Amino acid sequence: MSIKSFNPIPRTLMGPGPSDINPRVLAALSRPIIGHLDPQFVGMMDEVKALLQYAFQTKNELTIPVSAPGSAGMETCFSNLVERGDTVVVCQNGVFGMRMAENVTRCGGILVLVEDEWGTAVDAQKLEDALIKHPEAKLVAFVHAETSTGVESDVKTLCAVAHKYNCLAIVDAVTSLGGIELDVDGWGIDAIYSGTQKCLSAPPGISPVSFNEKAVEVIKARKTPVQSWFLDLNLVMGYWGQGAKRAYHHTAPINALYALHEALLLLKEEGLKNAWARHRHHHDALKAGLEAMGLTLVVDEAIRLPQLNAVAMPEGVDEARIRAALLSGYNLEIGAGLGKFAGKLWRIGLMGYAANEANVRLCVSSLDAALKVEGAGIEAVGSFYTK
Amino acid sequence: MSIKSFNPIPRTLMGPGPSDINPRVLAALSRPIIGHLDPQFVGMMDEVKALLQYAFQTKNELTIPVSAPGSAGMETCFSNLVERGDTVVVCQNGVFGMRMAENVTRCGGILVLVEDEWGTAVDAQKLEDALIKHPEAKLVAFVHAETSTGVESDVKTLCAVAHKYNCLAIVDAVTSLGGIELDVDGWGIDAIYSGTQKCLSAPPGISPVSFNEKAVEVIKARKTPVQSWFLDLNLVMGYWGQGAKRAYHHTAPINALYALHEALLLLKEEGLKNAWARHRHHHDALKAGLEAMGLTLVVDEAIRLPQLNAVAMPEGVDEARIRAALLSGYNLEIGAGLGKFAGKLWRIGLMGYAANEANVRLCVSSLDAALKVEGAGIEAVGSFYTK
Repeated sequence: MSIKSFNPIPRTLMGPGPSDINPRVLAALSRPIIGHLDPQFVGMMDEVKALLQYAFQTKNELTIPVSAPGSAGMETCFSNLVERGDTVVVCQNGVFGMRMAENVTRCGGILVLVEDEWGTAVDAQKLEDALIKHPEAKLVAFVHAETSTGVESDVKTLCAVAHKYNCLAIVDAVTSLGGIELDVDGWGIDAIYSGTQKCLSAPPGISPVSFNEKAVEVIKARKTPVQSWFLDLNLVMGYWGQGAKRAYHHTAPINALYALHEALLLLKEEGLKNAWARHRHHHDALKAGLEAMGLTLVVDEAIRLPQLNAVAMPEGVDEARIRAALLSGYNLEIGAGLGKFAGKLWRIGLMGYAANEANVRLCVSSLDAALKVEGAGIEAVGSFYTK
Repeated sequence: MSIKSFNPIPRTLMGPGPSDINPRVLAALSRPIIGHLDPQFVGMMDEVKALLQYAFQTKNELTIPVSAPGSAGMETCFSNLVERGDTVVVCQNGVFGMRMAENVTRCGGILVLVEDEWGTAVDAQKLEDALIKHPEAKLVAFVHAETSTGVESDVKTLCAVAHKYNCLAIVDAVTSLGGIELDVDGWGIDAIYSGTQKCLSAPPGISPVSFNEKAVEVIKARKTPVQSWFLDLNLVMGYWGQGAKRAYHHTAPINALYALHEALLLLKEEGLKNAWARHRHHHDALKAGLEAMGLTLVVDEAIRLPQLNAVAMPEGVDEARIRAALLSGYNLEIGAGLGKFAGKLWRIGLMGYAANEANVRLCVSSLDAALKVEGAGIEAVGSFYTK
């Protein structure tokens, strides 16, 4: 194998993440590396924490970036909060709810699964029924923005139900943070994890998490050690502790944190509400373009995520061929269906920096052209270029 | 808090890692992001695997970068190979051996600890005695290059002892890979993990691992699921499987892998033996410079790591003040002692790209100047600058 430096053909990323990265963030990523115990770096860690508190809308002291992807952020929540024999209710309406359920059993927890149809939101009444039936439950977990279906669930209501039955609420905000309203303190979320490569538009590999005081008390009061040394927050807190002398735990992914710092700074400069409005604005344009072609979004408008659009497959279209044509002909990536929805829909992301007018125009126009080549009988946008 | 873009003052990194990064690697890091299922990225994944096989000197199919720091690579080895009730012998001669022991108990394994003095190598006879006493042992684990002390242990001999008693050998090669001889296949290592931020000189955040067929069989024959979903190699193998259709598991840290690819390519271009010789060459120069000042290396020459030099503290010197003076006055980072050795020595790294003549000259010269300011009565190198 003759190997050369890797110089990828650039793509426009409108799949389920990673999303396009702002040049300011890429520039930050490649700044000179410094030590992870350097006072300069320690100061930047404090800024990252403050910026994450802003993004999450929380005053939680324990608001930090876990040094691994969103899946590890999920595992941080479960492995720290669940002890063997604890009953955990997981509400499942897509792939990532299933993954939460898998985490519960791997931590030795007793799983109570509340299932909702894929493409629908988590049903608060079903959750309440499960909690009435299982008064021993300690935790409730659900996904805010289900990346596999493009559905938003009502976190505020679900947290209220969890608290009514004395459970803590764990929320998956991988795809929601920075793209739609999320109010950790206002909604009473006890533990939350997210990812960097969706609406924050930083490189993948880091997982922002936040835990409120009730959750921290549970972690501190554990009778057994956290099964993961790497993710044990009792140790990680010593490394990320505000003001305190940092205790070495592991080597932070320094350059990746430069990038996250810059991405969060961009979000703060824009303002959370403006960022949410921008996602909504470009979603509306994308929806208009897709509907003009005769395509339909599969999720009801009331629970539809602007940043992740599940598009029904037109009759007789080979979905993988279209995605391949978009990638090879237009350097545009859109996502396939996942799990039960594999082969049944596309997932078009408008996440973070990728939620912009040029991307919407490229997507609608090239999807139109690719479908014409496939003879899908779709003609609405007109050909801009002869390909 | 008024937060601006983070523009660190550049440092020269001669601590225990991270090390200085080659500009080619920083340039790779900030190339445009593409999707983690993009055919271009999948092709690059295969190249990273091939380059890691070169660096580890192995034909092991399961040779991949774990998407998290070295501590998670360690946990990948233990959580996949240890089942509850398994007896594991850990040889401990520094901080990272202790961390291995911690991993065993967190996986529900029964720990047999073989202790050697810090600053000495792992004793093969003590290991053999422990294995005779514990015929039920399934695994043996030890550190090749102990970052906390600067000691190399004899991996080939220790693996032979482990195999004689039908145990698999897990090796920590975080600080050795790329800096000193390491021969995974030739030495019979069954499972190994490393880090990117030491002698590979890529950014921290990724952990290369490799497992031979015997180890893979153990993982496939487990009676219980791996307690970590994120690190479960049965799932990760589906994502990194050569030639096979990649099954989505998590989102790889794409840009960090660009950087690792470039760093490994640099190692291949230089050649492993040349890289090892370069580390030795600059170690010899550093040693000469330090000894000319009257400083002494604490580890016996026969087991001393060229890439990590433990330097005894001169009488009456405040080690933290000297390190702070080097950082603020010369933008030079050297490492403090860790664990039992805190306050007792400095750790001067010559790792990867940082193992070069300019760094050695900067280190010897500025350490000399800083010690003069402290009145440590040291005068060998002469003052080049008035500070």
